[in-house]
Amino acid sequence: MLLMRQELGEVLREIRQAQGRTLRDVASSSAVSLGYLSEIERGGKEASSELLAAICAGLGLSLSEVLGQLRDRVEHVETLTAPVSLPVAPARETVSASAA
Amino acid sequence: MLLMRQELGEVLREIRQAQGRTLRDVASSSAVSLGYLSEIERGGKEASSELLAAICAGLGLSLSEVLGQLRDRVEHVETLTAPVSLPVAPARETVSASAA
Repeated sequence: MLLMRQELGEVLREIRQAQGRTLRDVASSSAVSLGYLSEIERGGKEASSELLAAICAGLGLSLSEVLGQLRDRVEHVETLTAPVSLPVAPARETVSASAA
Repeated sequence: MLLMRQELGEVLREIRQAQGRTLRDVASSSAVSLGYLSEIERGGKEASSELLAAICAGLGLSLSEVLGQLRDRVEHVETLTAPVSLPVAPARETVSASAA
């Protein structure tokens, strides 16, 4: 099952790393404990809406910007995990050797 | 503070109502309790990732589709609540009547 907290964790980590920042730095900017932020990035804990707002602020992004990246990532994962429907050749009449 | 659970609740309710469905119907399709779904729609409770996945499935939408609508709504609310910067006229020298 595709779980939002796991994809959100990846997105928050990607943003932080793209900014060249440490967990400690973002935790401090967000007023969120280091351990909690780390758990959220690993997808182990759900971020409450209040916590998510604080982390977005700490990263200097709006909630909609983070949600946009999350949507894109989830869509990508959905594409990768979608059931594959292989092309099926149309049924053809079998011509047996004896009929030739 | 803009809270994700409140906007998510609104989005889930809008989708359900656009489908002309009752809370009871979607709760049943999602295997989520009616009371819990109602609380989520009202923004009173955070939906866990498992519950959100179940509700999306019950509504017949992918998580990325719901997140897309959520992103759009949050962006709209951010625009409405952004601090307004009024245009400030450039400073001009004050010409006093006596100087004329």
